[in-house]
Amino acid sequence: MKAQFNTFIPPIRTLMGPGPSDVDPRILNALSRPTVGHLDPAFIQLMDEVKLLLQYAFQTENQLTMPVSAPGSAGMESVFVNLLEPGDKVIVCQNGVFGGRMQQNVIRCGATAVMVQDAWGKPTDLHKLEDALKANPDAKAVAFVHAETSTGVRNDAKSMCALAKQYDCLTIVDAVTSLGGIDLDVDGWQVDAIYSGTQKCLSCVPGLSPISFSPQAVDVIKNRKTKVQSWFLDMELVMAYWGQGGKRAYHHTAPVNSIYALHESLRILHEEGLQAAWQRHADMHLALKAGLENIGLEFMVEETYRLPQLNLVGIPDGVEDAKIRVQLLNEFDLEIGAGLGELAGKAWRIGLMGYGSNRKNVDYCVNALTSVLKR
Amino acid sequence: MKAQFNTFIPPIRTLMGPGPSDVDPRILNALSRPTVGHLDPAFIQLMDEVKLLLQYAFQTENQLTMPVSAPGSAGMESVFVNLLEPGDKVIVCQNGVFGGRMQQNVIRCGATAVMVQDAWGKPTDLHKLEDALKANPDAKAVAFVHAETSTGVRNDAKSMCALAKQYDCLTIVDAVTSLGGIDLDVDGWQVDAIYSGTQKCLSCVPGLSPISFSPQAVDVIKNRKTKVQSWFLDMELVMAYWGQGGKRAYHHTAPVNSIYALHESLRILHEEGLQAAWQRHADMHLALKAGLENIGLEFMVEETYRLPQLNLVGIPDGVEDAKIRVQLLNEFDLEIGAGLGELAGKAWRIGLMGYGSNRKNVDYCVNALTSVLKR
Repeated sequence: MKAQFNTFIPPIRTLMGPGPSDVDPRILNALSRPTVGHLDPAFIQLMDEVKLLLQYAFQTENQLTMPVSAPGSAGMESVFVNLLEPGDKVIVCQNGVFGGRMQQNVIRCGATAVMVQDAWGKPTDLHKLEDALKANPDAKAVAFVHAETSTGVRNDAKSMCALAKQYDCLTIVDAVTSLGGIDLDVDGWQVDAIYSGTQKCLSCVPGLSPISFSPQAVDVIKNRKTKVQSWFLDMELVMAYWGQGGKRAYHHTAPVNSIYALHESLRILHEEGLQAAWQRHADMHLALKAGLENIGLEFMVEETYRLPQLNLVGIPDGVEDAKIRVQLLNEFDLEIGAGLGELAGKAWRIGLMGYGSNRKNVDYCVNALTSVLKR
Repeated sequence: MKAQFNTFIPPIRTLMGPGPSDVDPRILNALSRPTVGHLDPAFIQLMDEVKLLLQYAFQTENQLTMPVSAPGSAGMESVFVNLLEPGDKVIVCQNGVFGGRMQQNVIRCGATAVMVQDAWGKPTDLHKLEDALKANPDAKAVAFVHAETSTGVRNDAKSMCALAKQYDCLTIVDAVTSLGGIDLDVDGWQVDAIYSGTQKCLSCVPGLSPISFSPQAVDVIKNRKTKVQSWFLDMELVMAYWGQGGKRAYHHTAPVNSIYALHESLRILHEEGLQAAWQRHADMHLALKAGLENIGLEFMVEETYRLPQLNLVGIPDGVEDAKIRVQLLNEFDLEIGAGLGELAGKAWRIGLMGYGSNRKNVDYCVNALTSVLKR
């Protein structure tokens, strides 16, 4: 054991990986304001505002809209453990890492996951999904990832939800990387359960997971035959804590300061406006694309379903993945993401999320890559 | 929907309830430092230091020691879902709210909880525990709360663990309110699994749950026949993320800034030293006791098992609980805790935890209570 530990002074990075993304200084400022009690009237008022602002961000009137007091993976788990019971069947579309994680969640609920597989880098094929729906009339839900962080692919969430609804399925959407970055319309698309993360296009610190359940999903939860296997994530308890039905029942202690930060990040999104934020993400993506193509780098995802906030860029032949990323980090304090799974060593993932989706970051990244690649 | 939302400027409270407690300004400062990536080498080094410092705080050499990326209730759930499998039997000692929560966790794992009940405000009776151990030779574990936050009672953790070990049971300890405030010796007492919270005697922001598992508990986890029902809390995955065995495998995104804060809070504990911190809690409790008895208030828990950091104080006849607490909050910005469960309306819970366990808070609380009670 060391006799002394120094305070941690983090290096000042530019975060252009798959998240966390650059945090707006306004949010860091809000984060560090003095802590109040989690049952303080002032905090309860803040919780109500956070719910309203999340409804805005998700474009929903769902009453059950709130942040789970844990990261996105816990948000994912919240959705599955509350909606599923042992023996249920769910159609899970996978075209990257996070569809696979959904499958794990379904299995751990004692339910069955019917997988619709598409290649990494391609979107889910609607025909395949329809085939699966036809073949599984007993499926309770369709689950998929809106913005696949591992590949930079945008799945056609609107059409997928419409299809699922045609077959009377609940719709479960992973919006970890999409919320605030691209078009997302929970009520308009008939999404029944959705979760996101704070550290992507909301530019907030990591640690919370905004979620929302439709009235139909709430009915499913209320009519469960078995108890939710997680006490911490049990929505009947969590929603009572978040004031559903006008009451406040102690459940856990909310991460007070992180809620300050989320509130500020949602205020920023609300000030800019959803459409303007999506447009900015689209514009910055085009600027990055122009810059990277100019130095011979290629995008690996087709334009029609390419995410503006997560850019999958091919690593040129003969270029050593890790060496370049280490140089970017050490010499430029610039973080870009490695490829995941079958894309490891073959691609980089360059994030342009939220606050970090700006011209300064685009230029810096292009110039830094230009510099290290020409050596 | 409002057209505009204002930034949240929290009132400056003195937090003397059951937690969160006053946060040291050094910790708020650390919290708001620029975010780095959760796989950044600088952050990984920080994670290693946090593990070392938690080992110090818990007094353990357990390799599997880390913070869960969620509040104390998730720490509790981590322990139960990882150690238990359906059909297991656990002896749970209850003498307040949190023993009941343990029971809920056991049940949701498909296991059986054999309850050892004692009155709220009294410690667990060792004879009752021994009777339960004799009557249930197939029990896998004994679970209990070290410092019962709902009553201010200290259970005799050392003797309870020794007894459980005599009957070959694993020992599971809730140290949410004890860590950093009173004597706690994980290795010396043979604790197999323990969890805490950051917002009590560590004076950190709420949102994380330090946990530790003994080598024997790790063996139990490694030899499970069934998968852990929670993907997010699955220790095999979490420990790989925290670098167990020298590897780092992506699991979830750690709440980076909250880890900065925890690191700083553990540094503060390490600087002061465990024994000195415990002594300060004992001293401040005595100062509070003198002040409150001076104005006729009575402690409801017997001195031998009274917690210094959580003081259960009887509400005098004819005094209206809520009115007093509202006056303290509105006129003095002072938060004290209400009674929970059967103690609601009958007692206050006055916290003297971590940074907040200081002479200034003691005097302020005594004077504020004096002022509002004499009206």
